[in-house]
Amino acid sequence: MPAFRHPHRVVYSECTLGNHIYYARFLDLFEEARGEFFRAMGTPFLALQESGLILPVLEADVRYARPVRYDELVHVEVTPSILGRVRLEFAYRVVGPGDDVRVTGRTLHVATNLQDRPQRLPQDLLAALAPWVRRDDSPEGNATATAIPSHAEG
Amino acid sequence: MPAFRHPHRVVYSECTLGNHIYYARFLDLFEEARGEFFRAMGTPFLALQESGLILPVLEADVRYARPVRYDELVHVEVTPSILGRVRLEFAYRVVGPGDDVRVTGRTLHVATNLQDRPQRLPQDLLAALAPWVRRDDSPEGNATATAIPSHAEG
Amino acid sequence: MPAFRHPHRVVYSECTLGNHIYYARFLDLFEEARGEFFRAMGTPFLALQESGLILPVLEADVRYARPVRYDELVHVEVTPSILGRVRLEFAYRVVGPGDDVRVTGRTLHVATNLQDRPQRLPQDLLAALAPWVRRDDSPEGNATATAIPSHAEG
Amino acid sequence: MPAFRHPHRVVYSECTLGNHIYYARFLDLFEEARGEFFRAMGTPFLALQESGLILPVLEADVRYARPVRYDELVHVEVTPSILGRVRLEFAYRVVGPGDDVRVTGRTLHVATNLQDRPQRLPQDLLAALAPWVRRDDSPEGNATATAIPSHAEG
Repeated sequence: MPAFRHPHRVVYSECTLGNHIYYARFLDLFEEARGEFFRAMGTPFLALQESGLILPVLEADVRYARPVRYDELVHVEVTPSILGRVRLEFAYRVVGPGDDVRVTGRTLHVATNLQDRPQRLPQDLLAALAPWVRRDDSPEGNATATAIPSHAEG
Repeated sequence: MPAFRHPHRVVYSECTLGNHIYYARFLDLFEEARGEFFRAMGTPFLALQESGLILPVLEADVRYARPVRYDELVHVEVTPSILGRVRLEFAYRVVGPGDDVRVTGRTLHVATNLQDRPQRLPQDLLAALAPWVRRDDSPEGNATATAIPSHAEG
Repeated sequence: MPAFRHPHRVVYSECTLGNHIYYARFLDLFEEARGEFFRAMGTPFLALQESGLILPVLEADVRYARPVRYDELVHVEVTPSILGRVRLEFAYRVVGPGDDVRVTGRTLHVATNLQDRPQRLPQDLLAALAPWVRRDDSPEGNATATAIPSHAEG
Repeated sequence: MPAFRHPHRVVYSECTLGNHIYYARFLDLFEEARGEFFRAMGTPFLALQESGLILPVLEADVRYARPVRYDELVHVEVTPSILGRVRLEFAYRVVGPGDDVRVTGRTLHVATNLQDRPQRLPQDLLAALAPWVRRDDSPEGNATATAIPSHAEG
């Protein structure tokens, strides 16, 4: 299955001097795409939360390859990894036309209940995630994983 | 008593293309200065909230006279007005060196309890506000009110 | 012609304590919808800018009727008005399901060249705007204008 | 020399549902503190830029240990490292009262001219940085470095 992709049109509010998206805003874009990915899976965050499960962020990393400019239409790709029983990781790629990679990143999440106690990832969420989990083990396909050793610890 | 003033150093995250603060961020600056004004009065918002009173915003207006640039040190002035028994208004001026007015604005708030029911402004809050309330009725001193009709001029 | 409407899904990054969109973020939403409106007219801001015309904001107002919550799908309506030879105004409505109006606003813009000199609005832009300009002069249809005097009522 | 510390009062605009700073905003806080660190060294970014040197971000990482709440006064610590001839890294700690570490992070920067060509870090900047460079090689003091192998490659 191809990676999940969410389109995003760049607005002034995201840009800073020199005409590029401000470095922090990519985490906002990752959240937007992550939310749409969960919706596409049939398990929006809000539904998970109402069932008592939240997914706070433990770690976030961003790698800036090339700037993203005002009014560009980019796509944010989201690829999940299941790390053990309670942790999820998402890899992101922000790509311009022609699959031009501008920015990559990852976020690491832990499943908890509303009292912040770690919870096993529920079976139906694991089943929904399964088709999207990355299976490419080539160095090329696994670029984020090699950058972040904590990934392997999961 | 002179108006309450809060200093603010402009960062990249607030600016957009063309090197000026993005138009929405002035409402963030107004909030920052408003919070410090309440702290200076001895009644931080958090303390009010813990006593069961909140001040949601009903209306916000901003007038943009001149841009504010990256790394400038500006001051945000806050001047309260008491409007009847349940409403507060704040007028703002963002000024650069030499009292150069860049942006003005106002926010209108209603006092409510945590269930969104309007509440009378408490006596101790009214007493704390009193020394700061604008008493100048000259057209000059009443800049926000005179600025609004420009809408009708269009 | 019905008003231009742009959909917007509410994300965590726009919300604050108490689960509602932070008051300043509506100006970001207005910008997003305004940009898409210009694109829909066939004259994206970027193309205007490349032709030497920009539309800086002189004034912005927001009226908050009801909160907008995380994960809600709202629509931002944009209705232009042409004010003389160099000024444009946009009225906004943020509506939830069932045309439930949550927030309204307006922004006033002046057409300038890249050196900040006022410029006449070009004929092709006026022609593109014409079908969208509000013609309803009833008090009902003229909500923004009627909303402003509430300041004087205070 | 102790680490550079910049105070920051948490405002509503930085917080999201559940009363904590939104995960992306820590990169905004890092920028604010980094800018004040450069000012404290006597070389504000704006002065560097006017001399033709900029420091774009190549990488940014954040580790979230405990939430930061509305109205808390935190301090953002900034500790520089010089990585070879053209790269600088900054480690950050966001600490609450009692040196309670809430969030840590790092940003990696490359020195370039205004045409994006890598430039050697100027001698006067290296001299200004020298007193602040971390010399603690204990595992405790070097926590960020161990998390990020690219650090060692510099």
